[in-house]
Amino acid sequence: MFQSFEARTDPRQGVARVAELRQQLVLQGLDGFLVPRADEHQGEYVAACSERLQWLTGFTGSAGAALILRERALVFVDGRYTLQARAQVDPDTFEIESLVENPPARWLGTNAVADMVIGFDPWLHTVSEAAALRKALEKAGAKLVAVPSNLVDAIWHDRPAPPAEQVEIQPIGFAGELASDKITRLAEALRSDGATHAVLTDPASLAWTFNIRGHDVPHTPLALGFAILAASGLPKLFLAPEKLTIETRAYLTQLADLYSPDAMETELSHLCSQGARVALDPALAAEKLRLLVEEQGGTVLALPDPARLPRAVKNKAELAGSRSAHRRDGAAVTRFLHWLDLQSPGSIDEIGAVRALEGFRRTTGEETQMPLRDISFDTISGAGPNGAVIHYRVTTATNRSLQASELYLVDSGAQYQDGTTDITRTVAIGKPTNEMCERYTIVLKGMIAVSMLRFPPGTRGMDIDPVARQAHWMAGIDYAHGTGHGVGAFLSVHEGPQRIAKTGSEKLLTGMILSNEPGYYKEGSYGIRLENLIVVRAPEPIPGGDIEMHGFETLTLAPFDRRLIQVDLLSNQERLWLDAYHARVREEIGPMVEGEVLDWLKAATAPL
Amino acid sequence: MFQSFEARTDPRQGVARVAELRQQLVLQGLDGFLVPRADEHQGEYVAACSERLQWLTGFTGSAGAALILRERALVFVDGRYTLQARAQVDPDTFEIESLVENPPARWLGTNAVADMVIGFDPWLHTVSEAAALRKALEKAGAKLVAVPSNLVDAIWHDRPAPPAEQVEIQPIGFAGELASDKITRLAEALRSDGATHAVLTDPASLAWTFNIRGHDVPHTPLALGFAILAASGLPKLFLAPEKLTIETRAYLTQLADLYSPDAMETELSHLCSQGARVALDPALAAEKLRLLVEEQGGTVLALPDPARLPRAVKNKAELAGSRSAHRRDGAAVTRFLHWLDLQSPGSIDEIGAVRALEGFRRTTGEETQMPLRDISFDTISGAGPNGAVIHYRVTTATNRSLQASELYLVDSGAQYQDGTTDITRTVAIGKPTNEMCERYTIVLKGMIAVSMLRFPPGTRGMDIDPVARQAHWMAGIDYAHGTGHGVGAFLSVHEGPQRIAKTGSEKLLTGMILSNEPGYYKEGSYGIRLENLIVVRAPEPIPGGDIEMHGFETLTLAPFDRRLIQVDLLSNQERLWLDAYHARVREEIGPMVEGEVLDWLKAATAPL
Repeated sequence: MFQSFEARTDPRQGVARVAELRQQLVLQGLDGFLVPRADEHQGEYVAACSERLQWLTGFTGSAGAALILRERALVFVDGRYTLQARAQVDPDTFEIESLVENPPARWLGTNAVADMVIGFDPWLHTVSEAAALRKALEKAGAKLVAVPSNLVDAIWHDRPAPPAEQVEIQPIGFAGELASDKITRLAEALRSDGATHAVLTDPASLAWTFNIRGHDVPHTPLALGFAILAASGLPKLFLAPEKLTIETRAYLTQLADLYSPDAMETELSHLCSQGARVALDPALAAEKLRLLVEEQGGTVLALPDPARLPRAVKNKAELAGSRSAHRRDGAAVTRFLHWLDLQSPGSIDEIGAVRALEGFRRTTGEETQMPLRDISFDTISGAGPNGAVIHYRVTTATNRSLQASELYLVDSGAQYQDGTTDITRTVAIGKPTNEMCERYTIVLKGMIAVSMLRFPPGTRGMDIDPVARQAHWMAGIDYAHGTGHGVGAFLSVHEGPQRIAKTGSEKLLTGMILSNEPGYYKEGSYGIRLENLIVVRAPEPIPGGDIEMHGFETLTLAPFDRRLIQVDLLSNQERLWLDAYHARVREEIGPMVEGEVLDWLKAATAPL
Repeated sequence: MFQSFEARTDPRQGVARVAELRQQLVLQGLDGFLVPRADEHQGEYVAACSERLQWLTGFTGSAGAALILRERALVFVDGRYTLQARAQVDPDTFEIESLVENPPARWLGTNAVADMVIGFDPWLHTVSEAAALRKALEKAGAKLVAVPSNLVDAIWHDRPAPPAEQVEIQPIGFAGELASDKITRLAEALRSDGATHAVLTDPASLAWTFNIRGHDVPHTPLALGFAILAASGLPKLFLAPEKLTIETRAYLTQLADLYSPDAMETELSHLCSQGARVALDPALAAEKLRLLVEEQGGTVLALPDPARLPRAVKNKAELAGSRSAHRRDGAAVTRFLHWLDLQSPGSIDEIGAVRALEGFRRTTGEETQMPLRDISFDTISGAGPNGAVIHYRVTTATNRSLQASELYLVDSGAQYQDGTTDITRTVAIGKPTNEMCERYTIVLKGMIAVSMLRFPPGTRGMDIDPVARQAHWMAGIDYAHGTGHGVGAFLSVHEGPQRIAKTGSEKLLTGMILSNEPGYYKEGSYGIRLENLIVVRAPEPIPGGDIEMHGFETLTLAPFDRRLIQVDLLSNQERLWLDAYHARVREEIGPMVEGEVLDWLKAATAPL
């Protein structure tokens, strides 16, 4: 299994550890220390050695921070994690604060007193974050100090070693563009921005640029490392030597000068002493890098990660791979949905469903000679009220059986070498209520509206988000998450900068892959989410129109639960869309399944 | 007539004036001087004495700037004015540049050379504009210098005197809130922002705060002046004494200390020497004010105009006034549309239509004892291809007759003491083509989609803009303007900060009035725009829903041309909306008209 169901931490672990950390504060002359849930690369998943927040507090969420002061200790989490944090941390040791409304910088702005000294690890905070913290503290007459080594590491005696998993080459057949050509493209971009160098800190950018993948963090095929791209000359690539075989080393030496990560500071310092103008993405790069560049005489240019947009725009090979991955994944999900329909209500539970789904992905991957490399995130498997918890992770403690007259929400994804998938379906267990069907149909209408939409070049994700919500709003409902996130090509299942959300200010470009996932959540009762991945199509003329318009191609292939659709709420066009989609699912998935599954698929995809 | 149709300028006027201005440059040791189309208040309409750009160059548009250098002279205009500027300025004297893509700051950033000295009048540029100019010039090693008096004024010998029209009190029955209460509200806001004072530079804010109106600029009932609000104590109000009668003076002395505008610098300096913390809106306030505050020891707080949001949110009396104004205006427009239908194709022209429309507004205002105070902007009266010019102003040179098989677009508005209106209708002259009907129906669908929309608190104008464009996009068309602008209460017809547009980042609040005006423009052929004013309704529950949702109430009352509606393109709900709207028009306007007009109205508003 790629997923565990155990509680990973114990609320009791925090007390003694915080006490030890406070001794460190005293030793270092600090009044406080920040422990963010972050590593040097600011990714969604971090290696075990970087789970400092979890080790110190017990909180296991994927975003958050702790602030340990001499007398108080706070854990900052966002709305989706408030309940979880309350259950996971010791309430006598930690106060819970909102990461969104009152993040550490704002909290310190209000609560810091003159002459206070707050320490932070400059490798774990971005340039932007550090600037906000510094500003807030200075306003209060207090001080932010970068510590030379992390205080948690000093007391975490059995801290795991950094990951040292094998790096793989992503074959050109899947990558679609030679790494050498990508490096040339990026070097041109640096020149036109007036930079001599750029530090790539995001391992997804490293993976994309050099056509490599790794196994250093869960669920995302990343090799942790850095690169310094140069406007002219070879890039410098910093990867632990034990991650490379003789073959991968030979491949990479053709593209870059290879170094151990330890050499990073020396190499960057050397470039800066020669007057390098170094592009750093203030939202991604560690404050440590900014300090280094400026201390060594270089100039920092605040520019977005240069690989960010080229990576987001998928090429033909990546799209072909994604289509293929989605057919395979669709067959696995179809087998799962068929299996689910055979189970009588009450006979299986959320964990059992997760195990079955992963099993279908494994067997389908093996049959098709493209094995499941990982799941792309911990499967969200929520029955009844658990479905209403947007970022639910099932554990043995929360596990619930799938009962009659309830909805079951399953949001899951896979990593195959040819593509990353992410799909959500909501299924009726037994007979659903009218309200469930009405809400399901509204969510479906939102998803179809995005699927059918045509839109002019220049349209931003924020211009599409309201389209998904119109049916909701008319019915007096909404959902408290964005409509879609970017998705990588055998990379991160949450990839920027493209997104369909209120904050989606990036223009959508041909070839970007996004999710399309409106939802509805009735707290304490049920959750509905319907998610397909979609790709932005090149603008095409519309008969009689003036402007060539983009549209979306749907990648995900699996039936929607017909029992939950209230057909009279669909417009004619929506119905036509759904029938055509189901026909395509039947056509593309049909040849990959047989017997009872095929019969089930035919019925599940029959016209409404 | 409140509108003229003559060419106001002659391209030949610029040559000699620019030569004279260059002599001033030499005298003052400057290499260039900026002449924006702006006064000290940054309003859309300026008094004749502030039409420096028009006097110097011949360009009459409502936005633009000239940059006069020793050897070159440039006029910067936006896309809607490019053709007009070409026709109005002397091509041997002026180069035309884009105000949007290459505005003066950017142009100077590229073209200024070291040690160049560019003069500007700090009363005519906002704090933000001046900062951008300074930054661009400093980067080039050049300098921006504030001149003590405007160079154009030195050579404009017959420059009109500043306006000195009578100030009127806006009665409490229309204003709905005592000025003294508004002043108290604003003072509280200043205190919570940590400001001791705020300078109101926008005459619309002055008008709203003190419940006064004026006649200093065309089409908007403004009295030009300033106020300094205080966190505690009386505000200081700066208005030319000749604008006040004994009654208005008596009224205003109860609210503020009155001064002549000449006293403004002295009074502000005095406050600053005592350490005032002065709120200035960097997007509205003159750079001169910033300089003054900082030179005199005060502190500038960059904050939005404190009256901006309270003014945008209309109270009950303002909404009641607006409804009443819209019934009156709807009756006038209905009489006009009936009259228009009686004219045979080719028998009237664009100017004749403008005259007739103003006539109907005047007589309807007289009949209802609420006379037309002004039109709210120059009527856009565009037949055939002129309808495709989004900001068309008809002159004797462009005047065109209304021909058979053409569309006629008329966008107009009125100022009554109880409200400001703005309405656009597009009418078929003779028999329209199928394409015209299809496009008209698409525009109508967009307008109806906004009219029917429900949306949660927190929704921004930018979240609604795409709703108006969905039908367009599906047909491969779009329109190159926002969907809606804010509208004042017997104030500016274009009022911020609320707007429905890609840039509409302001949340819509209960009581805000906006326009709802999608369009379609086929260059060289025809233009379609349909515009109603709408007001944001308080959130109300929707049966079965979770969240109380805002909606819009439509204020504008006049029929849409049924001959242009392709009924089969409308959804059932759209049809129901339109029939209900027409029924309401018949019900509310019917009692105000009689005879043939009433018969016409009944037919025009019959169910589809």
